[in-house]
Amino acid sequence: MKCLVTGAAGFIGSNLVDRLLADGWDVTGFDNLSTGRREFLSSALSSDRFHFIEGDLLEKPILLDAVKGADTVFHLAANADVRFGLEHPSKDLEQNTIATFNVLEAMRETSARRIVFSSTGSVYGEAQVLPTPEEAPFPVQTSLYGASKLACEGLIEAYCEGFGFEGFIFRFVSILGERYSHGHVFDFYRKLKQDPARLEVLGDGHQKKSYLYVQDCIDAILTALESSEGGVEIYNLGTNEYCEVNDSIAWICEFLDLNPRLDYTGGERGWVGDNPFIFLDCSRIRGLGWEPAVSIREGVIKTVKYLQENEWLLESRE
Amino acid sequence: MKCLVTGAAGFIGSNLVDRLLADGWDVTGFDNLSTGRREFLSSALSSDRFHFIEGDLLEKPILLDAVKGADTVFHLAANADVRFGLEHPSKDLEQNTIATFNVLEAMRETSARRIVFSSTGSVYGEAQVLPTPEEAPFPVQTSLYGASKLACEGLIEAYCEGFGFEGFIFRFVSILGERYSHGHVFDFYRKLKQDPARLEVLGDGHQKKSYLYVQDCIDAILTALESSEGGVEIYNLGTNEYCEVNDSIAWICEFLDLNPRLDYTGGERGWVGDNPFIFLDCSRIRGLGWEPAVSIREGVIKTVKYLQENEWLLESRE
Repeated sequence: MKCLVTGAAGFIGSNLVDRLLADGWDVTGFDNLSTGRREFLSSALSSDRFHFIEGDLLEKPILLDAVKGADTVFHLAANADVRFGLEHPSKDLEQNTIATFNVLEAMRETSARRIVFSSTGSVYGEAQVLPTPEEAPFPVQTSLYGASKLACEGLIEAYCEGFGFEGFIFRFVSILGERYSHGHVFDFYRKLKQDPARLEVLGDGHQKKSYLYVQDCIDAILTALESSEGGVEIYNLGTNEYCEVNDSIAWICEFLDLNPRLDYTGGERGWVGDNPFIFLDCSRIRGLGWEPAVSIREGVIKTVKYLQENEWLLESRE
Repeated sequence: MKCLVTGAAGFIGSNLVDRLLADGWDVTGFDNLSTGRREFLSSALSSDRFHFIEGDLLEKPILLDAVKGADTVFHLAANADVRFGLEHPSKDLEQNTIATFNVLEAMRETSARRIVFSSTGSVYGEAQVLPTPEEAPFPVQTSLYGASKLACEGLIEAYCEGFGFEGFIFRFVSILGERYSHGHVFDFYRKLKQDPARLEVLGDGHQKKSYLYVQDCIDAILTALESSEGGVEIYNLGTNEYCEVNDSIAWICEFLDLNPRLDYTGGERGWVGDNPFIFLDCSRIRGLGWEPAVSIREGVIKTVKYLQENEWLLESRE
């Protein structure tokens, strides 16, 4: 089993690489290191079944070389910066939509026919049905990020229909765990490091979020791959529980033994396009026998522990 | 009222231009003339409220000039070649997805904030619910064309949410009428001109299609614009009836007084990604008081009459 992992030096990608190597795969990792970290691959790089290529998915010749010989592509590379999409609208188009098109075309030119794609619960926009199943009513997009991921999903589906590809589309909630390096928990931890007495919270703190622990996420992906029936398969990935932003703040503060003043910026959204509630119906993936082993609370605390032990991650950003 | 019409020299675009001029609009027409016809604009070009720009939506500076001063953009330009999408996958990405992104960005740089977009019933893939309402279950794409139109819809929705645009998304069935220059009726008419004794039919002829007459389509668009409430509005556009490909063949042959042998290529799809049945629930647009004035049969015959009077359209293609 030989695969390519795009976004291999990212949070989820590097954890996936480690797992695939442990499971006996030959893995090529591809990353432009724009947000990925070479440090996340230090274990993988010691394996002779791992090969790393620093490249960008917009550079077609390097990408084509990377795909050669792989039968499966785990396409995780993306602009995952949901919040600042409106400041640079071309980024989601280029790094998500066009990059995914390039991956599919490189696969078509080689023998790779199986693609695993990290989509997002954001494609449901402000879902009318909660928890939201995969067959929710046709959604209206509320963010450039969601729109670009939806565009990628459509491309993958059309390649499955038109070119006989096998596609796995996973719509993630937010993922937490080791090597997590953006989002709520990261921001809160970093802010509390700077000022343990005060924490600014975007929105009113009542935004509900459903987080999944990264190893549970990878378990789910590998479970789905094992039970494939060909064609396109779409799975929500999340937990059956959710929390409010205020809950995760309380868990973090309790763990760190802090009691900061909370300053809310107000409003039910953290920013324009922020979804006040993403909560996915994950019956389909649970039907394959998968269930998360780690609760949201445990995931938050594991993440904070990791950040405590890896403060270089905080210092080198922003 | 000043507007830009992209795809102005196309089948629907040129009919829309004529109507907007008749209604008193100042109209800039934009077309790269790749499939559009300058002849379709002969009436418009005699108006001093019409200005034509030959340009491509991938050429950003020309596009920006064209958008300047417009408050509304009717974005109809597209690669509408559904059937041959698999032969050149980049065409739908470039001419639909990226072109639409360029239109939205040009609008953002100017004062245009209202966009009217021609989407397609193909975004429903092989719909599980028939007739298919706008809130059908989250569809799976089956063609690169549908996938690219879905990508455009998502972009428009995200610009409405993020930048305060007003968006009108119309999901069309196939459109028929004067200046129609591709699709079933066009192909059948051309084939019968070449050989009145035999007609090759892709698929088994039982593919069901719901056609809408072009002037009814334009009426619907203008009706929706009048009753706008801001934000994103999505409307299916079609008739409450449908026909089989075999019905339209019978109407054409009856009108032309021909009795060809029908040779079916077989299968329930005309080609890979062809949808055996697109039939839209148009209750939403009907709720605004609109209804089609022309039946499918009348639309087919009007189209054939137009082709008879404009045989230059047949000769100059393929």
